[in-house]
Amino acid sequence: MVTRTVDLRSDTVTKPCEAMRAAMAAAEVDDDVLGNDPTALILQTELAKMMGKEAALYVPSGTMGNLISVLVHCDIRGSEVILGHNSHIHIYENGGISTIGGVHPRTVKNNEDGTMDIDLIEAAIRDPKGELVYPTTRLICLENTHANCGGRCLSAEYIDKVGEVAKKHGLKLHIDGARIFNASVALGVPVDRLVQAADSVSVCLSKGLGAPVGSIIVGSQSFINKARKLRKTLGGGMRQIGILCAAALIAIKENVQKLEDDHKKAKVLAEGLNKLKGLSVDIKSVETNIIYVDVVEGSKLTAEKLCKKLAEHGVLLMQEGSSRFRVVLHYQISWNDVQYTLSCFQQALPGVHDENGN
Amino acid sequence: MVTRTVDLRSDTVTKPCEAMRAAMAAAEVDDDVLGNDPTALILQTELAKMMGKEAALYVPSGTMGNLISVLVHCDIRGSEVILGHNSHIHIYENGGISTIGGVHPRTVKNNEDGTMDIDLIEAAIRDPKGELVYPTTRLICLENTHANCGGRCLSAEYIDKVGEVAKKHGLKLHIDGARIFNASVALGVPVDRLVQAADSVSVCLSKGLGAPVGSIIVGSQSFINKARKLRKTLGGGMRQIGILCAAALIAIKENVQKLEDDHKKAKVLAEGLNKLKGLSVDIKSVETNIIYVDVVEGSKLTAEKLCKKLAEHGVLLMQEGSSRFRVVLHYQISWNDVQYTLSCFQQALPGVHDENGN
Amino acid sequence: MVTRTVDLRSDTVTKPCEAMRAAMAAAEVDDDVLGNDPTALILQTELAKMMGKEAALYVPSGTMGNLISVLVHCDIRGSEVILGHNSHIHIYENGGISTIGGVHPRTVKNNEDGTMDIDLIEAAIRDPKGELVYPTTRLICLENTHANCGGRCLSAEYIDKVGEVAKKHGLKLHIDGARIFNASVALGVPVDRLVQAADSVSVCLSKGLGAPVGSIIVGSQSFINKARKLRKTLGGGMRQIGILCAAALIAIKENVQKLEDDHKKAKVLAEGLNKLKGLSVDIKSVETNIIYVDVVEGSKLTAEKLCKKLAEHGVLLMQEGSSRFRVVLHYQISWNDVQYTLSCFQQALPGVHDENGN
Amino acid sequence: MVTRTVDLRSDTVTKPCEAMRAAMAAAEVDDDVLGNDPTALILQTELAKMMGKEAALYVPSGTMGNLISVLVHCDIRGSEVILGHNSHIHIYENGGISTIGGVHPRTVKNNEDGTMDIDLIEAAIRDPKGELVYPTTRLICLENTHANCGGRCLSAEYIDKVGEVAKKHGLKLHIDGARIFNASVALGVPVDRLVQAADSVSVCLSKGLGAPVGSIIVGSQSFINKARKLRKTLGGGMRQIGILCAAALIAIKENVQKLEDDHKKAKVLAEGLNKLKGLSVDIKSVETNIIYVDVVEGSKLTAEKLCKKLAEHGVLLMQEGSSRFRVVLHYQISWNDVQYTLSCFQQALPGVHDENGN
Repeated sequence: MVTRTVDLRSDTVTKPCEAMRAAMAAAEVDDDVLGNDPTALILQTELAKMMGKEAALYVPSGTMGNLISVLVHCDIRGSEVILGHNSHIHIYENGGISTIGGVHPRTVKNNEDGTMDIDLIEAAIRDPKGELVYPTTRLICLENTHANCGGRCLSAEYIDKVGEVAKKHGLKLHIDGARIFNASVALGVPVDRLVQAADSVSVCLSKGLGAPVGSIIVGSQSFINKARKLRKTLGGGMRQIGILCAAALIAIKENVQKLEDDHKKAKVLAEGLNKLKGLSVDIKSVETNIIYVDVVEGSKLTAEKLCKKLAEHGVLLMQEGSSRFRVVLHYQISWNDVQYTLSCFQQALPGVHDENGN
Repeated sequence: MVTRTVDLRSDTVTKPCEAMRAAMAAAEVDDDVLGNDPTALILQTELAKMMGKEAALYVPSGTMGNLISVLVHCDIRGSEVILGHNSHIHIYENGGISTIGGVHPRTVKNNEDGTMDIDLIEAAIRDPKGELVYPTTRLICLENTHANCGGRCLSAEYIDKVGEVAKKHGLKLHIDGARIFNASVALGVPVDRLVQAADSVSVCLSKGLGAPVGSIIVGSQSFINKARKLRKTLGGGMRQIGILCAAALIAIKENVQKLEDDHKKAKVLAEGLNKLKGLSVDIKSVETNIIYVDVVEGSKLTAEKLCKKLAEHGVLLMQEGSSRFRVVLHYQISWNDVQYTLSCFQQALPGVHDENGN
Repeated sequence: MVTRTVDLRSDTVTKPCEAMRAAMAAAEVDDDVLGNDPTALILQTELAKMMGKEAALYVPSGTMGNLISVLVHCDIRGSEVILGHNSHIHIYENGGISTIGGVHPRTVKNNEDGTMDIDLIEAAIRDPKGELVYPTTRLICLENTHANCGGRCLSAEYIDKVGEVAKKHGLKLHIDGARIFNASVALGVPVDRLVQAADSVSVCLSKGLGAPVGSIIVGSQSFINKARKLRKTLGGGMRQIGILCAAALIAIKENVQKLEDDHKKAKVLAEGLNKLKGLSVDIKSVETNIIYVDVVEGSKLTAEKLCKKLAEHGVLLMQEGSSRFRVVLHYQISWNDVQYTLSCFQQALPGVHDENGN
Repeated sequence: MVTRTVDLRSDTVTKPCEAMRAAMAAAEVDDDVLGNDPTALILQTELAKMMGKEAALYVPSGTMGNLISVLVHCDIRGSEVILGHNSHIHIYENGGISTIGGVHPRTVKNNEDGTMDIDLIEAAIRDPKGELVYPTTRLICLENTHANCGGRCLSAEYIDKVGEVAKKHGLKLHIDGARIFNASVALGVPVDRLVQAADSVSVCLSKGLGAPVGSIIVGSQSFINKARKLRKTLGGGMRQIGILCAAALIAIKENVQKLEDDHKKAKVLAEGLNKLKGLSVDIKSVETNIIYVDVVEGSKLTAEKLCKKLAEHGVLLMQEGSSRFRVVLHYQISWNDVQYTLSCFQQALPGVHDENGN
């Protein structure tokens, strides 16, 4: 019987803390579709300021934040977006930018660190002169931190360079900043500086920051005006969202500073797992709160078996293919949980490849 | 200076009551995208049962509920939906079923009571034999109560007949039931009986029922499975939604029974307004909680002026064109508010068309 | 055994005359996708001039001409087009503007003469201030002659008025002018004058004009540039189209003047049919080359039986519903064919409702 | 002054021969939208038989052939297609499958020979269990010969293997066979054998085969039925197409056998160009009628200058980027033209990098 749960599947699993619950219970609210919910207004103003942009909009999810951003920048039929072949938008968002938005994705190879080579980005831009057979590139998307590349950070310098390419060719730059605060903390660069070159950024409130629901997109006032209308079209216009925004205000006030600790725990956990026979972690890639663990080839282990075994101890992991799993730290994982997790792995590992291979 | 607010713009403006706030603060939650939030599960099970359908899904808004429903039923390219020319989906949802979903709308005239003539519906059905030049009708949509027709109710018998037409031609039937509980209460017909013929229904929790955020769609398990995936595509997949679902559980437990009172107040208010010189209300059309008030032609009044004047007294109305405004009752409007509203109108009316026409 | 065929189903059934065949055999051609086919260039220049517009583009069909025109004017996501509820675009083009183009159609009632009331058009225009819940009207479509209204003509004055409404609200005006030359001839108004207020017009070459394949769209140079690219996207870019354009050049040179005769024959045929017991034609509505014939209620006739019976004599009609059929004149129907057709009807009619009802 | 033109830009530039012109002038035709044009029927039956499929459909262009095929196989919203990153559909068709069809493209790296690694294809397949965040793979596309890979051929064995993967996962296989006859001739494999594993194939009639206009798609009867309707939606339904089909019948009768000669000429031309100082051709990649020529790095040449210089001699080339151009052979290029072209290059080359770099 499991008596303890250590949920390492994602940083989306956090539950609202007492302060958030109290804030939600007391939140001042109004109909955010008819006018503006006062708490939403405060949150949006706050986030716009933090990110150094003119305006902000609360949306139900990061997926909607990205979808709206791509569709607003690519509002003309026949648009193309350049994005990483391994990016969250391309891989994990149901292809919505095409299937719902009719935007043509053109992928550029993501390097291991989440970047795409600047010259490859530039080479992928199409239709400078309105050529007959090409869709028209209107947007470049970056992801920071880059989830599928292990939560690695794009530097301000790199983003600036991509921004220059975008500007040179009259394109917009969107950053999927679901975990942009993790990047800011890990790099020691203020978040507004980090996204300075971007025309829009989507930021998740319900990942490492720990709010129960929602994301924010930021950009120019004109971008946000269009985004608000598209949010309504998609069905993301909600009524008394002050409830959720009140929790989010706590999240940005109290939890940004906790991210550094998540990164430290990730480092320690990564190093601990890498020492275990049968597992392998690329330590240097663990820059923030995400760890990809490979089950070493040749061992009788599979990721599936291991995840099951650990689940028996209440340690929940996210399997990724047959020989890989993902571990994500967040503020509701304590140092003690880290130790407990390591000890569960130690216990599980010999058992997994015992004589019967069970 | 306004010291009192009577917000009659819509029944979406209600604020969560103390019980809801307490429930939200105490709600058991989990990541509803990764698995299922326990409170969401309870709400969904409860609603499915109430509506007499296999399964249910929480969505951020009624617009998303309708959009998902139409798109799931019309998941093949080249689909057409038959719907009222005056329906909410056609008029007030940004044309999303076309602009986002590529579904072709074919309107049939809404009668004053919100119905469409059965023979006109049947005549509008197209492509029984896959003809070369017609889109393929796959869905009929009804709206109950019908907002733009003054909140009037479709009877179970009428809906059954439309359901028979749908079945006969192999079509699906969706009901935009944003205010289906108002219809159920007004007609004295159990809500599951009322939607018996429907393949799907969207129900608003944040209108008369008073929950802060959200709608529910119900239908077969297979419909809901597809709906869940499309909800993710649109960005309506949210994390710890148990917070919002906890409030909604209070709403359906406590507030359905209050709708009858809303209807009574609407009747009284409608009759009061109709007696005022310069205003006209079609009393028999006030079946539920919505009143359309016409500013009588020839008077110096305009709807705009009148709405402004009333707003000065804290009475908020929704202007609809130059000589019409809408009044919507909800459980946070008391009998005293009704009297106050009438007295404000009495006060405002002579002042509006004074000698100077101000 | 049929020894004679009188094909009255549509004016699209004409076969290229000897002059066209000779022109096609001798046509100068080039790759119209890579550059410009010289004969296509001549045809396009000629048509642009005739229609009084800057530029023209050859497209494979009237459906593509309308689809491209609507999509170019509505190139921003979230667009709405106002068009007749009975228009060809809305009824007979597979709903392509929505299912392929994501444009939301908003229909206005077509009067019997093919017009829509100007004030209804104006009232249907939406989103002047970018309102949250409305798609944005960007285009009004007219149809001249109006096929479903029996080929009736819109006058220059009416079109001008619609053009003024469009201009006043910043909208574009497109005319589905599949049979615009019929309207020009019937009204005695030069075709360029007739479409003066339009931003774009699609014109069929393969209807009354008798070319084997193709339509032309005309408009500003900027409109045509966008249209050319969209034509490629849709797969309408073709190679040595000089072949087809050579025939079309004969069509516009020789066959425009023959339309008047088609209209005369239509009038005579309509009057002859109207005199027959069991049939009814609204004579005054026969302004051009299309006749709608109603099978009188109460007779034992059905349109289906009658069409079959006539087909046995080689007279081909287009059935429209259970008690209506369509007769369309074109230049390959002689006066003799008209007489033959009338005599076949006379012969068929008593036989259809003979004692056995066969 | 140019007195001779050798158009090597593409094999789409051929002009109809005398036999084709005669056939077009004499073609039996009818309205192919209302019923079936007799010559189109013959052509379609003939092509279906040649390709070993149930049915065929004439379409205005290869782009429309591919667009219809992808959209018919991916007719459910949320579909994904796996295709080469360098394929014609992905690069040169305006992104129409997304921008018009809402299909999400997922690219796999094309090897130099036009293949994609089978295991990479299989790894790219998504949503076997209807997972929440993935679009659903429904189609794999191959291209044979592969234009951007220099006209190289996919073998029957390779295609069969891809077909097995498709079948195993319940996917369809489409072949963009714009130049499938070139592949068949070059490989010495009957064309029906070559496409045996495919559910649909699009074949260009107006490339190497020399017909003036059109492509054919082949597949099952049910596929073609859906394709016919979608052709109408896109505006590809044309009237008396027997004119064009008559030329195409000559093309398939007389010109398939000439392709071998095109390939021989391409080989000779390629070897000749490769010997010239400053130019480089990967000889072994010249399997059919396409030659990619690289301007050697370090020389003062640019592709642009060279193309201009050659154009002065009437030799037309297709520039591809700054240091590459394309040469395409077709049956209207004689052995004498090949020699002339080589001599023009010899003449041009020293002049291009003369002392002044002009």
